[in-house]
Amino acid sequence: MTNTQKTNPSQPRKASTISHWDIETDVAIVGFGGAGGCAAIEAADAGSSVTIFELASASGGSTAMSSAEIYMGGSGGTRVQQACGFEDKTEDMITYMTMAAGPQADAAKIRNYCENSTEHFQWLVDRGVPFKDSFHEERAIMCLTDDGLLYTGSEKAYPFAQQAKPCPRGHNLQIEGDNGGPLFMKIITENVMAREAVSVEFEVRALCLIVDDQGAVVGIVVRKNQQELNVRAKQGVILCAGGFVMNEEMVAKYAPMLTRGNSPIGNPGDTGTGILMGMSVGAAAINMHEGFISLPYYPPASMTCGILINDKGQRFINEDVYHGRMGAFLLAQQSERFYYVLTVDQYGDYEKVSFMGAQVAGTGESVEELETELELRSGSLQHTIELYNEDVEAGEDTLQHKAPQWLEKLQPPLVALDVTPGRGPFIPYFTLGGLDTLPSGEVVDPQRRTIPGLYAAGRTACGVVRSAAGYSSGMSVGDATFSGRMAGQAAAAAERNN
Amino acid sequence: MTNTQKTNPSQPRKASTISHWDIETDVAIVGFGGAGGCAAIEAADAGSSVTIFELASASGGSTAMSSAEIYMGGSGGTRVQQACGFEDKTEDMITYMTMAAGPQADAAKIRNYCENSTEHFQWLVDRGVPFKDSFHEERAIMCLTDDGLLYTGSEKAYPFAQQAKPCPRGHNLQIEGDNGGPLFMKIITENVMAREAVSVEFEVRALCLIVDDQGAVVGIVVRKNQQELNVRAKQGVILCAGGFVMNEEMVAKYAPMLTRGNSPIGNPGDTGTGILMGMSVGAAAINMHEGFISLPYYPPASMTCGILINDKGQRFINEDVYHGRMGAFLLAQQSERFYYVLTVDQYGDYEKVSFMGAQVAGTGESVEELETELELRSGSLQHTIELYNEDVEAGEDTLQHKAPQWLEKLQPPLVALDVTPGRGPFIPYFTLGGLDTLPSGEVVDPQRRTIPGLYAAGRTACGVVRSAAGYSSGMSVGDATFSGRMAGQAAAAAERNN
Repeated sequence: MTNTQKTNPSQPRKASTISHWDIETDVAIVGFGGAGGCAAIEAADAGSSVTIFELASASGGSTAMSSAEIYMGGSGGTRVQQACGFEDKTEDMITYMTMAAGPQADAAKIRNYCENSTEHFQWLVDRGVPFKDSFHEERAIMCLTDDGLLYTGSEKAYPFAQQAKPCPRGHNLQIEGDNGGPLFMKIITENVMAREAVSVEFEVRALCLIVDDQGAVVGIVVRKNQQELNVRAKQGVILCAGGFVMNEEMVAKYAPMLTRGNSPIGNPGDTGTGILMGMSVGAAAINMHEGFISLPYYPPASMTCGILINDKGQRFINEDVYHGRMGAFLLAQQSERFYYVLTVDQYGDYEKVSFMGAQVAGTGESVEELETELELRSGSLQHTIELYNEDVEAGEDTLQHKAPQWLEKLQPPLVALDVTPGRGPFIPYFTLGGLDTLPSGEVVDPQRRTIPGLYAAGRTACGVVRSAAGYSSGMSVGDATFSGRMAGQAAAAAERNN
Repeated sequence: MTNTQKTNPSQPRKASTISHWDIETDVAIVGFGGAGGCAAIEAADAGSSVTIFELASASGGSTAMSSAEIYMGGSGGTRVQQACGFEDKTEDMITYMTMAAGPQADAAKIRNYCENSTEHFQWLVDRGVPFKDSFHEERAIMCLTDDGLLYTGSEKAYPFAQQAKPCPRGHNLQIEGDNGGPLFMKIITENVMAREAVSVEFEVRALCLIVDDQGAVVGIVVRKNQQELNVRAKQGVILCAGGFVMNEEMVAKYAPMLTRGNSPIGNPGDTGTGILMGMSVGAAAINMHEGFISLPYYPPASMTCGILINDKGQRFINEDVYHGRMGAFLLAQQSERFYYVLTVDQYGDYEKVSFMGAQVAGTGESVEELETELELRSGSLQHTIELYNEDVEAGEDTLQHKAPQWLEKLQPPLVALDVTPGRGPFIPYFTLGGLDTLPSGEVVDPQRRTIPGLYAAGRTACGVVRSAAGYSSGMSVGDATFSGRMAGQAAAAAERNN
């Protein structure tokens, strides 16, 4: 193993070696996605001059590629939650998000997020983001209507519902039949562009940070039109450059299990640049092994009435959980094959509406026949279905605790989809690790001491979302926009360096 | 969340601020356990002067606390393997260790370890480490006889045996009825002390590294008798200061799932000092989330004939795997309780010889009765045992692939032990993350560029062992001693700085 990278674009430069500044700004922001945009608005509104450096030719980032649900609630409920009849308690939201983040939860960050979530909703509305006061009843991965609110996680499923009162918190933009991401970024971009204090430089690559003799970050070197420019950032640099899902080497090194997935979710700039720049000045990168990997087995929602089994014919998770949790538990099984078993009725219009694209592995006029087709141990699936059907009849899934609304008897003829990773199903993945930050967005070192002048937000930071097993749609854009705002506010409140 | 640590003992100092050197040496080694001792011997034998700084009053580290099996083989076999009739192929050892390390395996490091493993055996023998040419047949967690060789991992178990020809590689010191660790460290310490080129400073705390203006490590600051001493290390500093299992804050931050265990395995100095010192000069710390957590359900070996079940009455792993693999899969289940079910015969002298200390949760004259006692879903355990017993009769565990030698029918009366974490069983744990190094022991940054003058070995580095799911006894001391030697050789081959 020898060193293959002779030059390292992310190593910091000393301010004392910088002969001149090409650009001077109060706050320099790397990346113009949801996090960078919100950071810019807040910093400008607090009186700072801001320059955004974006690699692409336009704003957007991964936020624009997403469905842009935003996970918000608590404090009695957002306007939409209240209009739809949901009173959301902050403590329920904190409990849910803490369980969702797993043992690596950052309590302070989650509390800050939840306590300020309805205010965040209002902030977005004030900037023109439209949410309709209507509730989408049907279980969906993405809301294809213009309804403003839906359940986007495992809130109603075991073991979450037993600990925190379920409440829908996925806020969906008012747009029909399309992802909310482009609209969301259009609105944020218009807000940014309307502020005279903000300059935006597109097609510019951030190369490295500039530090003073005390280790404080005082600027950044960027490349524009083949030329290196020295940018002085008097109040600080905010890294909003996305995650590292597009950096094969980093994924192999930090989160190798993600390679069981087959579709990285991110934009081409998600190469870890921001994280590496932070690490180059001593920042801690945490939770780097964690990733979201999912099995989007619904829609149709009726799929939830089926059962997921391993190659022993066993169920191992309640099928009403979010698809990311399904993926996390699937990967933890010692099993070479996985099947999703359901009735022809439950299968419904799967082939038309499915995101998963799994192939039919077998069908059976009886469970025995299906066992034979799937080459399962004789009696194994029969037993699983026997107990399941008994439980369905009694109205309680005693083993895996799927909620009663999804309990339907599995009566042949049955269909089995092959959902084994690597054998057809669409398995999206993205990273969940990044720079350790305080709730303010200040970047910290392994001892949690702040690195003066450095901030991070969005996927470049390790935010409130830390585990695929508890992920809910809307947490990423929620975290990106909220953490972007925090970082923008904090940078704008910093003293200007000389 | 505010910064609670105002001073940080591990931050590096600039050589330009050092007014005088109190100690000058070619190679400075932090920590006198298995890694530090072997590093010192190699560096001295290559012509370098060496100073070891050890926090405790004596040598030993975690190696002395361990049973000191050493995982070695390949190249046709060590003397002991050959004498016992085992011809071990390097490629089988590489395959096994690669599977054992999981997707985060370091191929170059594993290859280097395996290709040089019989040479390592001879090196240890030449330094006086005694191994008897005898094979211990019985399945054991630790060898309580003086036999020289035993199976210490999952070599004979699914899925390993299907990929790599099984071979025993756990080499046990020739010592009756006691852990090999103290004897091993006595021998290593005698070797170290016999070398005039080596000085040892006990009760000395390493405070921080000293770096020159180019970022190269040129020394270390230590505290001895309340005084800070500046140590110049002309060829380099080798960090052999153990892992971080005794640092609660680091465990909570990096490997929170380890807290499901109840007995940290390590010495009091395992507070992450070496890792933090490395990180303070830009080194990468990798695999920090991974830890070894185990369920030492044997001895007696007859326990292997029992079955491990979750609260659904399901088996989920072949019970002939190493106890660390058992622990890893147990933690990945969605289940609130776990039981180990076996016959009274298999239970045998469990209460006398067990390390696990689990309590009997129930007994049954029939499986139904046991289900009731354990409050399991009626029919769930019955089905598991029915299929299992059918498989036993046919001689093949078709579902979990436990090897035929462990297949015995589960006939009532049956006993169930409660092996739920937190409800009695002894669950040891230790960390598996550390500084990223090349096979030479050179410490690298996140881009894998070496940090001049800095080396790491043993648990301070992230070595060949990277996953609890594939751990085998003897890999830790094997890695510590071998990686210590590599680092000692590499540092001694470095040019002396001015």
